[in-house]
Amino acid sequence: MPEVISSPGELKDRIRELRRTGSSLGFVPTMGALHAGHAALFDSASSENDFVVASIFVNPLQFDRREDLERYPRTMEHDLLVCDQHGVDIVFAPTAAELYPGDQLAFVDVPALTESLCGKFRPGHFRGVATVVLKLLNLVQPDRAYFGEKDAQQLAVIRRMVQDLNVPVAIVPVATVREPDGLALSSRNKHLTFAERGIAPVLSRALQQALELLLNKERSVALIRQSVLPLFAAHPEIRLEYFAITDPNTLEPMEHVDGPALIAGAMWLGSTRLIDNVSFRSERRILWGPSGGPV
Amino acid sequence: MPEVISSPGELKDRIRELRRTGSSLGFVPTMGALHAGHAALFDSASSENDFVVASIFVNPLQFDRREDLERYPRTMEHDLLVCDQHGVDIVFAPTAAELYPGDQLAFVDVPALTESLCGKFRPGHFRGVATVVLKLLNLVQPDRAYFGEKDAQQLAVIRRMVQDLNVPVAIVPVATVREPDGLALSSRNKHLTFAERGIAPVLSRALQQALELLLNKERSVALIRQSVLPLFAAHPEIRLEYFAITDPNTLEPMEHVDGPALIAGAMWLGSTRLIDNVSFRSERRILWGPSGGPV
Repeated sequence: MPEVISSPGELKDRIRELRRTGSSLGFVPTMGALHAGHAALFDSASSENDFVVASIFVNPLQFDRREDLERYPRTMEHDLLVCDQHGVDIVFAPTAAELYPGDQLAFVDVPALTESLCGKFRPGHFRGVATVVLKLLNLVQPDRAYFGEKDAQQLAVIRRMVQDLNVPVAIVPVATVREPDGLALSSRNKHLTFAERGIAPVLSRALQQALELLLNKERSVALIRQSVLPLFAAHPEIRLEYFAITDPNTLEPMEHVDGPALIAGAMWLGSTRLIDNVSFRSERRILWGPSGGPV
Repeated sequence: MPEVISSPGELKDRIRELRRTGSSLGFVPTMGALHAGHAALFDSASSENDFVVASIFVNPLQFDRREDLERYPRTMEHDLLVCDQHGVDIVFAPTAAELYPGDQLAFVDVPALTESLCGKFRPGHFRGVATVVLKLLNLVQPDRAYFGEKDAQQLAVIRRMVQDLNVPVAIVPVATVREPDGLALSSRNKHLTFAERGIAPVLSRALQQALELLLNKERSVALIRQSVLPLFAAHPEIRLEYFAITDPNTLEPMEHVDGPALIAGAMWLGSTRLIDNVSFRSERRILWGPSGGPV
């Protein structure tokens, strides 16, 4: 089983020891409730580094709704097994009081990237994400840190933060892992009722359909949306938050797709919010096969 | 003469080499136009570390007035001599294009500490300071970084940023260096006319008088201000920006001094802005002697 450390000071001592041996270090920050998507992050990290540190911390700073924070799944025993099976050497699992011993007064933000897509609907969320990730990167000081492509806006924010603030770490994106019917894995999928679970793949199907249109040379975002939105409208249970096609770096909405694009959506099913995205890189690729993984 | 490096990539390679030898590293960020105050920072850094890196970079991000940026003194040849005489091994002097190769979209801020004192009059200034200091700390990765007490709010912001973001560096404050008549050394003193230079020590005398009152058990900030403000009013050339007594950590204004306090002021003489401060720590001390240094 991995070594579990909760004290930031103890973590730093332990990392200093590892560093002395010249070992390379991979880092995977998580909020626990681990699934095969996290396992893919751990697998990438352990194949590319001598040591792997994962953090498990449900970060209060990034929750815009108290209810979401309170009901976020906590499954530590299961999580440690997943870590063990996927090459994680050290699990850093601080309490909120250990990571935020006083009022948090310093923040990192990338305002230009956090006002669109999810950021528009979750004020303060990405500031909370960027701030905790920078804290964790400073504590762990890894060579490489791994983030899932499922959280596309988070990945864009972290990449830009690291680039603009000269943080000495390589950010490694890892492909989204999906259920056989296309639903992107997410810790929040646990909250879906049986009926909602049946409807949930509409989001990935809509993204897939938009991608097909782009691959078939449709370039008008208005026409693509017109073709895709009825998929959501067919299910009164769905409350669509956004369905957007944006520049993958600036996250600015496109009207006409003339280069790489990020196709992203967010929708509510009952009290559960689901997000997903696919990238259009002007080349044909099959998104996922019967196994649920990318093929 | 110190080694001069302008490329961030070259700096990182050079630091990696130094690190391999197990050397400790002190860092002094400056905007150049070096004077004896900077020399004191270098002296502290070189007495406590194996190697000293100084940066010389007039940071556009922290100037709220274009005119101030443009006329900020640039004296590189002289600066390198000062560095040489005070134990600096490496001078990092990037161009703005090297340190900000694209649009800077990521920022660090400590809003709770930047809305009072100077921050109130210089919107965006401390966000620019915190952001560039974090960039430089990430590039240099020093064990210790040295900051002058003259810029008290800057010091408070940097300390809080380092603490809240778990930046792996020790922040070392260094006492303000003064002219024999009490004027705090500043690169901006160069801009003063002969007449303005004669009036400039009013700021430090006012701070000193406020400190004397506190040491003599006066506790009412209103009464202290009432006693001190006429010193400024006696000179129509002075435009007082603020004269405040605050909590030294939160920088919140005090009405009644019941613990340590920061006494800080900012004033304009013609087109030059001067700042200064002294700390009240509930104990008697002489602030400066005939030599101009703390005694």
